Amino acid sequence: MKTFDLRSQLGYTLSQPTPVIFNIQPVENNAQKIVGEDLYIKPSLSPEEYRGLFEQNRYLRVNAPEGNFEISYSATVEVSYFWGDPNSIRETPPAELPADTLHYLYPSRYCQSDLLFGLAMSEFGDLVPDYSRVTAICNWIYDKVQYLSGSSNSQTSAYDTATQRAGVCRDFAHLAIAFCRALNIPARFVSAYAYKLQPPDFHACFEAFLGDRWYLFDATRLVPLDGIIRISTGRDAADVSFATFFGAAQLNQMNLSVDLVSESEEKDFRGERAIAIS
Amino acid sequence: MKTFDLRSQLGYTLSQPTPVIFNIQPVENNAQKIVGEDLYIKPSLSPEEYRGLFEQNRYLRVNAPEGNFEISYSATVEVSYFWGDPNSIRETPPAELPADTLHYLYPSRYCQSDLLFGLAMSEFGDLVPDYSRVTAICNWIYDKVQYLSGSSNSQTSAYDTATQRAGVCRDFAHLAIAFCRALNIPARFVSAYAYKLQPPDFHACFEAFLGDRWYLFDATRLVPLDGIIRISTGRDAADVSFATFFGAAQLNQMNLSVDLVSESEEKDFRGERAIAIS
Amino acid sequence: MKTFDLRSQLGYTLSQPTPVIFNIQPVENNAQKIVGEDLYIKPSLSPEEYRGLFEQNRYLRVNAPEGNFEISYSATVEVSYFWGDPNSIRETPPAELPADTLHYLYPSRYCQSDLLFGLAMSEFGDLVPDYSRVTAICNWIYDKVQYLSGSSNSQTSAYDTATQRAGVCRDFAHLAIAFCRALNIPARFVSAYAYKLQPPDFHACFEAFLGDRWYLFDATRLVPLDGIIRISTGRDAADVSFATFFGAAQLNQMNLSVDLVSESEEKDFRGERAIAIS
Amino acid sequence: MKTFDLRSQLGYTLSQPTPVIFNIQPVENNAQKIVGEDLYIKPSLSPEEYRGLFEQNRYLRVNAPEGNFEISYSATVEVSYFWGDPNSIRETPPAELPADTLHYLYPSRYCQSDLLFGLAMSEFGDLVPDYSRVTAICNWIYDKVQYLSGSSNSQTSAYDTATQRAGVCRDFAHLAIAFCRALNIPARFVSAYAYKLQPPDFHACFEAFLGDRWYLFDATRLVPLDGIIRISTGRDAADVSFATFFGAAQLNQMNLSVDLVSESEEKDFRGERAIAIS
Repeated sequence: MKTFDLRSQLGYTLSQPTPVIFNIQPVENNAQKIVGEDLYIKPSLSPEEYRGLFEQNRYLRVNAPEGNFEISYSATVEVSYFWGDPNSIRETPPAELPADTLHYLYPSRYCQSDLLFGLAMSEFGDLVPDYSRVTAICNWIYDKVQYLSGSSNSQTSAYDTATQRAGVCRDFAHLAIAFCRALNIPARFVSAYAYKLQPPDFHACFEAFLGDRWYLFDATRLVPLDGIIRISTGRDAADVSFATFFGAAQLNQMNLSVDLVSESEEKDFRGERAIAIS
Repeated sequence: MKTFDLRSQLGYTLSQPTPVIFNIQPVENNAQKIVGEDLYIKPSLSPEEYRGLFEQNRYLRVNAPEGNFEISYSATVEVSYFWGDPNSIRETPPAELPADTLHYLYPSRYCQSDLLFGLAMSEFGDLVPDYSRVTAICNWIYDKVQYLSGSSNSQTSAYDTATQRAGVCRDFAHLAIAFCRALNIPARFVSAYAYKLQPPDFHACFEAFLGDRWYLFDATRLVPLDGIIRISTGRDAADVSFATFFGAAQLNQMNLSVDLVSESEEKDFRGERAIAIS
Repeated sequence: MKTFDLRSQLGYTLSQPTPVIFNIQPVENNAQKIVGEDLYIKPSLSPEEYRGLFEQNRYLRVNAPEGNFEISYSATVEVSYFWGDPNSIRETPPAELPADTLHYLYPSRYCQSDLLFGLAMSEFGDLVPDYSRVTAICNWIYDKVQYLSGSSNSQTSAYDTATQRAGVCRDFAHLAIAFCRALNIPARFVSAYAYKLQPPDFHACFEAFLGDRWYLFDATRLVPLDGIIRISTGRDAADVSFATFFGAAQLNQMNLSVDLVSESEEKDFRGERAIAIS
Repeated sequence: MKTFDLRSQLGYTLSQPTPVIFNIQPVENNAQKIVGEDLYIKPSLSPEEYRGLFEQNRYLRVNAPEGNFEISYSATVEVSYFWGDPNSIRETPPAELPADTLHYLYPSRYCQSDLLFGLAMSEFGDLVPDYSRVTAICNWIYDKVQYLSGSSNSQTSAYDTATQRAGVCRDFAHLAIAFCRALNIPARFVSAYAYKLQPPDFHACFEAFLGDRWYLFDATRLVPLDGIIRISTGRDAADVSFATFFGAAQLNQMNLSVDLVSESEEKDFRGERAIAIS
């Protein structure tokens, strides 16, 4: 178990009052416990809090006024990772997949697994159907796709990244998810705070359902997996944008920090073990 | 209230045992009641029944064996339509939308509302934000897109249909949904049995969230809206395919029928009234 | 006949020696006569001059050295416009089109007339097949596509612009060309200096083959057509980029000017007459 | 030198008189000599013959009447191949490419080399810039793309094939051309009669400009390169369709044959030597 202090501060300028939905608070589940949290909005406003249709994602909706607007969030979060042995984790065939994972086999806006079926089969179709196949997908992406800020935009999808071979964390996750789904491995998008991410920013990685649970992967290799604090889970980035404005807004300021407060005795298994945080 | 007898019969040939998920049973909710139903699978097999992550969609998962495989389903369904007055139904601004509708504002695999924002604003951005704007979207599609069997395939999306101007019911629904979402109107895909559809087939239409409920629309104008029996609700066709095979399968036979058993006294408001079945 | 003084000055910084092809000199043909011209390159280099495979486009190839690089071009050009009567100009059916126009019926990189066939037929298929149909295409684009700097990039094609409904002069031309070709009207891309263009820049418009010659159109309505001085003709922007670097280059400076030196007695028929400059 | 007898017979049914352009006659150049040829059209019609804007492609335009229409063409063609030593053929840098090859560096409808730049650089960017790099491109395509009749259509482009990983000869050629252009190697599309092609059909392959000439490649490996008789050369398939109908037509019959009449003494260098037929 690890305990993190995390903080995000976002500042905007708006030319008119604009509704906005934030998704910046970590989810609470068996693996993540919010020990304390604080939300500060300026000018002072009471946001509506609600949960997503599934996965318990936490959203804040507020009517941001004209002018300057700032939202700051801080929390202390305990994260308990599950460590598995990669050598013993097999893919679960479609006939045996839990019903609530099947939803994550379907193509989505940014993960067109149907269009990427040919490529996925060509590159990974013959690999052993276990944990190592998803690792192979991550390695393929890491080797062939350049991590390059500004090389993609909000319309870039896995179909584009497969060919353009450049992107940022969300593009890496989208491509990996699309490959997994094309191979009948349920896969979903995870937005997160990430310990040691430089420069600090919201991060994106993904989970694949293997054996009997969701395992975490990150094709960018930018951060240690045991420093991921999950904000939200979705089919792809469309579900978990950290801020959705219903109108124009200019982002002026964005500061994030993630600090390790304490760590229990458990050994760091990174590199030898599969990791799951749900 | 109307009562329908419906029936679907699907026959396949498989070259090897193949898992398959069927989504052919009507959902049960406040507006639809299953009075009786019968499922027949040949060779005899016990399918696993489960509900979707949301919207109570009903799925059947079965391991179809090699050789010939047949599934027949019949049901008697009572449908209670809600009739609204189009003149009094306004769009609900994003700040006031119920939390469980916001999910249906995001782009999805076949409804890339982000890519269609420019077109939606150009064609419908200046219209009055009420029920008539969704009607205008349906009219636009009906006028400009040709209904043509075989003109699209399982990869065709709203982005394609906007330009190729030909498609079938699912393409009409996808384009309408994408337009609605681009205008901040929650919209979702409805798969259905449809009374008087010729030739008989599974049908697709859509719902837009207006005022305080989901209203039904069908840009194809192929069937009376008060003959729609909902099977499933989803973001787009990816969520509600009537049959998903995890492997190759050949469809040999497909027979559907929908008959009106009885009708309560209520007047048929079609044409003058908005209709909702949820 | 009109006489223009035009000038372009381009400054770059290169991190290493890089070959580059410039296409900034107006073409010479029956309608355009170069009275005088001057080319200045700093540091001093002798470019290779060559003509394109067709249409007599003029290219300059030079090995730009590391560091700062500047190219300045000035010319005095006499342009003789042909003025036709729009009411008497018919489309030429495919069976009668001159052989050297047929090349311009085929789809190209940015003008996917095959993909835009459905949209073109839906919007313009029933119009009278004469000059007014191309005018209708221009009006449609002017009305429905927003001219917005920065809204498109070098990968944006007519297929995108048809839906995204925003672009710059090259996007307007690409969409018009694609529509024309879809209707079996030969159409081609024209890069140009443009009198009165604000802010001064290279311009793009298009020609459609009608009756027995190529007529000029500009769906942007940004400049008078009788102030167009043609640089180059091609299938689309891929053929006539004003600068193609085989490596990285940073554009630091770009100044253009077009001045009217003199004008012969002929009346300005703009608005009443069709115009051609070839 | 080899001499081939070739024959093509095409039969159509038309519901109304329709202009059509055929491009089925081999080009004549230094490497190909038409010893004799015969054209038969039923019903009897005199087609208009013309050459393309470049590359001397031969086109036949005819107004096909309503009803049944048949065109038969036969020819005896002498082909003189140029055999080069792959080990001594280098890529020519952009600064030194002949002016008339630069045209074939630009992206085209089906060969979007700009969109495929990232993939081309990732897979081939570090290879030695000589003949072997184009061979590596062909091997990559042969290994990763499945040759599958019916897997693509007339709208399928290199961008699609890169990901869908299935196609026919034209798709293989388009992808190879796009890769070459992305690497600054001029590349162009060749339509051809092909000796030993099974089943007999029109074939497509491509040429890359290396050293000081155009060398022939075929990523499909379906036929011996020294059995290729060039019909036409273009940027991609859009330029050299064997039949372009300006209206609907149904192809009823298509028979092709290519027979080797005689062969001069020269050794068959296939496998050890690079081949060029221009």
